[in-house]
Amino acid sequence: MNEFVRKLDVVAQPWSREEFEAKLRAVGPERYHDLHPFHKMLHGGKLDKGQVAAWALNRYCYQEAIPRKDAAFMSRTHDRDLRREWIHRIHDHDGQLPDEHGGIERWLVLTDCLGLDRDYVMSMRGALPATRFAVEAYVRYVVEQPLVVAAASSLTELFAPSIHRERIAGMLANYDFVNDDVMAYFKRRLSQAPRDATFALEFVKTYAYTRELQEACVEAVKFKCDVLWAQLDALYLAYVEGMIPPGAYNPKS
Amino acid sequence: MNEFVRKLDVVAQPWSREEFEAKLRAVGPERYHDLHPFHKMLHGGKLDKGQVAAWALNRYCYQEAIPRKDAAFMSRTHDRDLRREWIHRIHDHDGQLPDEHGGIERWLVLTDCLGLDRDYVMSMRGALPATRFAVEAYVRYVVEQPLVVAAASSLTELFAPSIHRERIAGMLANYDFVNDDVMAYFKRRLSQAPRDATFALEFVKTYAYTRELQEACVEAVKFKCDVLWAQLDALYLAYVEGMIPPGAYNPKS
Repeated sequence: MNEFVRKLDVVAQPWSREEFEAKLRAVGPERYHDLHPFHKMLHGGKLDKGQVAAWALNRYCYQEAIPRKDAAFMSRTHDRDLRREWIHRIHDHDGQLPDEHGGIERWLVLTDCLGLDRDYVMSMRGALPATRFAVEAYVRYVVEQPLVVAAASSLTELFAPSIHRERIAGMLANYDFVNDDVMAYFKRRLSQAPRDATFALEFVKTYAYTRELQEACVEAVKFKCDVLWAQLDALYLAYVEGMIPPGAYNPKS
Repeated sequence: MNEFVRKLDVVAQPWSREEFEAKLRAVGPERYHDLHPFHKMLHGGKLDKGQVAAWALNRYCYQEAIPRKDAAFMSRTHDRDLRREWIHRIHDHDGQLPDEHGGIERWLVLTDCLGLDRDYVMSMRGALPATRFAVEAYVRYVVEQPLVVAAASSLTELFAPSIHRERIAGMLANYDFVNDDVMAYFKRRLSQAPRDATFALEFVKTYAYTRELQEACVEAVKFKCDVLWAQLDALYLAYVEGMIPPGAYNPKS
């Protein structure tokens, strides 16, 4: 009986806010995609232009999905203040004012400079199927999971600034086809990501009020790391090992 | 004007039944996963027991999704006769009578004999994220696409018997941990798949009555090949190249 009570107690007791935050943050050093060999090659200047193009072409699918993911999130809450906060993520990606370029447009400047045709990039026809599967799994996750868990899946942004800083430096130093203008997306994310992450972290810490929800939020951060990691795995096999799946972009043709 | 009319004409004219069927069948020799290096290794006896276990563990996710996919398909039609035909696919996988073992149970006999814990396999915790993303993309596809296109995505079964025949022979000849009982799943599929495929092919040929739907059906077969190919790509990177993602099954630990 005592043992049973203790067991229940262990399951049910929520972590303190500090403990919970520490668990969320601990996922990064174990699973964030800055640990992936493809990223190390990208930042270290070990990829050729075709390989960087394959990365940018595939990563476009991820960029393209983010506003859909955020709209799905907003569609699920009755809280107007939450929507008013969250909506700026969509503006950031899509742009709002007539001549304002959002993150997706800035991404297309990168794919332009890599010699990729815009229509081809935007059609996503040449993207790896594994990229599309991973990205859409993320959108579905935000549609289907409890709202606070859906919010937690965005918390990989806690780990993003360091990767972006490293990427800007590494890509500018190593690739002559990349210049300051092209890196605009990442520069902007240096300031946006922490602001988004701070809000989402506070939201998650407040509304994951049971141990079960807290654990699900930690799992959400792992899930999101899986989404990012799987994209680099697919790039690595196709464009480092050379096993390009049928129908996917081939830099050499 | 003439050119415009001709262009419309080209777009709108449906293929003949024979031409349509030929286009559907032509996808296999170009994209079916029997062309993948991992399959060649599997059938050729080039994998060790841990690699075969990784394959079986991951492929379990696919088996597990099939009845959900078929239930999703059935949920979308008002045609009772169609449901009465389609439902036997669910019986085939889940079993129906009290002691009847369906395809999923037979798959677990395979994972048993490979030394994998059933609870672990069924939890899918050790599966590659890319596997789960691909498999769930298939389920979503059947939920979201026009019904005839959803049906067309099952037509990879047209190409399955030859792969199953090759697999049975190759695995029995090459792996001493595989016996006749274990191969029961594939033996059963030798007779089931053609029956399912014949019905689905007839259905698709009848109800894809515009060129647009016919083209979408051909794309559906390609999509399904992508789903299968992406699973083998992920297995190859993790268990042939040795780049196992964080948290995934590791045969050596």
